[in-house]
Amino acid sequence: MASIEDVLEKLDADRQGALDRLFALLRIKSISTDPAYAGECAKAAEWLAQDLTGIGFDASVRPTAGHPMVVAHIKAKQRDVPHVLFYGHYDVQPVDPLNLWDGDPFGPKIVDASTGPQIFGRGAADDKGQLMTFVEACRAFIATGGLPCDVTIMLEGEEETGSPSLPAFLAENKKELAADLALVCDTGMWDRATPAITTMLRGLTLEEVTIKAASRDLHSGLYGGAAVNPIHVLSKIIADLHDAQGRVTLPNFYDGVEDLPEDVASQWRALDFDEGAFLGEVGLSIPAGEKDRSVLEQIWARPTMDVNGVWGGYTGKGSKTVLPAEASAKFSFRLVGKQNPQAIAESFRDFVRARLPADCEADFHSHGASPALQLPFGSEALARAQRALSQEWGKEAAMVGSGGSIPIVGSFKRDLKMDSLMVGFGLDDDRVHSPNEKYELCSFQKGARSWARILAALSA
Amino acid sequence: MASIEDVLEKLDADRQGALDRLFALLRIKSISTDPAYAGECAKAAEWLAQDLTGIGFDASVRPTAGHPMVVAHIKAKQRDVPHVLFYGHYDVQPVDPLNLWDGDPFGPKIVDASTGPQIFGRGAADDKGQLMTFVEACRAFIATGGLPCDVTIMLEGEEETGSPSLPAFLAENKKELAADLALVCDTGMWDRATPAITTMLRGLTLEEVTIKAASRDLHSGLYGGAAVNPIHVLSKIIADLHDAQGRVTLPNFYDGVEDLPEDVASQWRALDFDEGAFLGEVGLSIPAGEKDRSVLEQIWARPTMDVNGVWGGYTGKGSKTVLPAEASAKFSFRLVGKQNPQAIAESFRDFVRARLPADCEADFHSHGASPALQLPFGSEALARAQRALSQEWGKEAAMVGSGGSIPIVGSFKRDLKMDSLMVGFGLDDDRVHSPNEKYELCSFQKGARSWARILAALSA
Repeated sequence: MASIEDVLEKLDADRQGALDRLFALLRIKSISTDPAYAGECAKAAEWLAQDLTGIGFDASVRPTAGHPMVVAHIKAKQRDVPHVLFYGHYDVQPVDPLNLWDGDPFGPKIVDASTGPQIFGRGAADDKGQLMTFVEACRAFIATGGLPCDVTIMLEGEEETGSPSLPAFLAENKKELAADLALVCDTGMWDRATPAITTMLRGLTLEEVTIKAASRDLHSGLYGGAAVNPIHVLSKIIADLHDAQGRVTLPNFYDGVEDLPEDVASQWRALDFDEGAFLGEVGLSIPAGEKDRSVLEQIWARPTMDVNGVWGGYTGKGSKTVLPAEASAKFSFRLVGKQNPQAIAESFRDFVRARLPADCEADFHSHGASPALQLPFGSEALARAQRALSQEWGKEAAMVGSGGSIPIVGSFKRDLKMDSLMVGFGLDDDRVHSPNEKYELCSFQKGARSWARILAALSA
Repeated sequence: MASIEDVLEKLDADRQGALDRLFALLRIKSISTDPAYAGECAKAAEWLAQDLTGIGFDASVRPTAGHPMVVAHIKAKQRDVPHVLFYGHYDVQPVDPLNLWDGDPFGPKIVDASTGPQIFGRGAADDKGQLMTFVEACRAFIATGGLPCDVTIMLEGEEETGSPSLPAFLAENKKELAADLALVCDTGMWDRATPAITTMLRGLTLEEVTIKAASRDLHSGLYGGAAVNPIHVLSKIIADLHDAQGRVTLPNFYDGVEDLPEDVASQWRALDFDEGAFLGEVGLSIPAGEKDRSVLEQIWARPTMDVNGVWGGYTGKGSKTVLPAEASAKFSFRLVGKQNPQAIAESFRDFVRARLPADCEADFHSHGASPALQLPFGSEALARAQRALSQEWGKEAAMVGSGGSIPIVGSFKRDLKMDSLMVGFGLDDDRVHSPNEKYELCSFQKGARSWARILAALSA
């Protein structure tokens, strides 16, 4: 096995080669949402399989009902080392509106910005640049004596279209893809100087409700005052779902929610998160959630309820004195810790039913339910990865949460019973999914060095 | 002046002539909403002016920016008699879907139903049949010695299109149209056997509100729990507008609302209104309004608040975890007695503003405000008309309310400072605005006799 110093030296020596390879991959127009680019998606998969084979992986392009997967394996020379499964995706978002780009989206280039050089092009950050940080780390390891872990790489071509072929692929290849830990590189840094590991993803219970009252829309002049108005019923239910402290009032809602370990809480406080700037950027100033929680807790570590849509009655111009027959709303519950998504859906339905006046019915429709995902704070892998990242960046890596979800992490947990270590080097201003996408050259180079250090640390 | 017995005898003797005239009017396709029928509207106006001139009125067709008005005057032989202004409209609703009609909508005919003969055709009830009951009463009076009141008739051709030319016409002809009392025949019977006078029309304050929070739609995963959700804010406001007793909670909302005089209240109880059937017809069973009021009070004599429409966020198929920047609702307040529509709009806006959390704004838009209209229960004209109707039908005329509004009555009150006596002979099953519109032959014949009796009673 190579020493980590040799590997890092190799990476530094081969910077131009790494950039040339990334540019070659960025030139392939692998837009997965547009069938016209199916050939380009296949080309990107071929390119990656070939590159991985060249390094020494046993790599293949694997057909699916949609765009192909790339799967590659390599074993460490030693036995009894950790086995990691690295996940990335080679497909990219469409590029329109093209006129907002300062150059060809598929003509990658280095652009000098005040904060340093940037790699310009569609996919630079999401996710070709990120996935190549890992591939380059592997390449350098192998070139200097071999990897310290058994490594499987799975690269998807449908991430930007919701991964339709992924569940079946995981199910069919469960054994081949099984590993000790997944490495997922779809996340970002805390800020330009501070690396981060995403350890918590909130879960989600999605419910749609239609409150039905009269058998048809009524004239509010003729019936108003006597006939029940489903908009009022629905509004009361929505209003009842929070108390004055901003807490969700569903019975047993907070079962399975645990307070942060004190070391994590103190680390979050130390991040010096600028609540004012976070809210100010979207025109707000006062945190609206649970009054006794910081904004970071509110968005990373606390469960929430939001109505994402509401509709009923006449919504056009002017007025129409209708007393509608029904009113509807879409509810989302963000979940943390061990909250049970199904139990919360049931509790919600009971809550609604308990508030239905005479003559009203409620129709329910689930739009999905998935638990929160959390890499245990005490896990050894997490501690090692954190140390490795801190060494590379000269600053303690932050353990952060994410209010959103990363579906692949749920699939790995559910189908492969595997935790995910989420590390990435993107920045908030990378313009992912937008014109002029970029990836910091520093993210690319130090990202590869970071993965090398993490692989070394995991097997130490 | 003719004796009322002579007039009634004359009406009975001329039944076929009256029907022929009504049929001639019904054959004219005076659909006001469709410009293709503008010529037919003009033709109906000409026909009416000619008929009135033939009786002895000083009648003319008066151009407006839209379809013309017909105005006709005639004086009683005596002096110091009441002057009444009769209002009706000669325009009709479109007839589509034509395939649902059991015959030509403009080919009037008598149809024998189990409840008696009916006049079939578009406009039979709304409003040609109704307005001709009054014209026939005048004709019989004049033929037998002269009218007991000074009479002005104003017939509109744009009622079904919202009367766009009416306000200007009233303003320009204020003096000519001034009278002691308006007679409006756009209403109905209590039931097949019981005549009715509509003495109360609820007023209306219409307000639209948009609650604005963040400067753009947010991702509920990233911001949920920290950013204020305008749907929640709006729902809380809607929920707060009623208390547990079904009363509206706006400060000073019930100022100017008076309880019914005991004689009216007891008359309403005697009407034996079937609350179960009224609600059951639209799939409901339990009155939803103020718990201490009967349904008739709730819909006729009590003010209400209803949300007529609500919308915000994502309302399409499936789910979208958006935290919307704004949410909107349309509110209508039905008013009674001396409630002040403007004061209620202001109270409502204050109510909303007082419930806006930090970072939220409310945009308000008025869609109109008009006071309730009430013919004073103690008025002499009302008592006389009630006696006259009771004599004709052999059953005490009900004094009823209407939850809806009849705009012309508001215009008469506001612009001409004139109360309206609302009497009509329509039934709930007349299929007004629908295929197979009909008017009971009995309504037409006894309606004319009723007007004759009312005119006699008013001048007695």
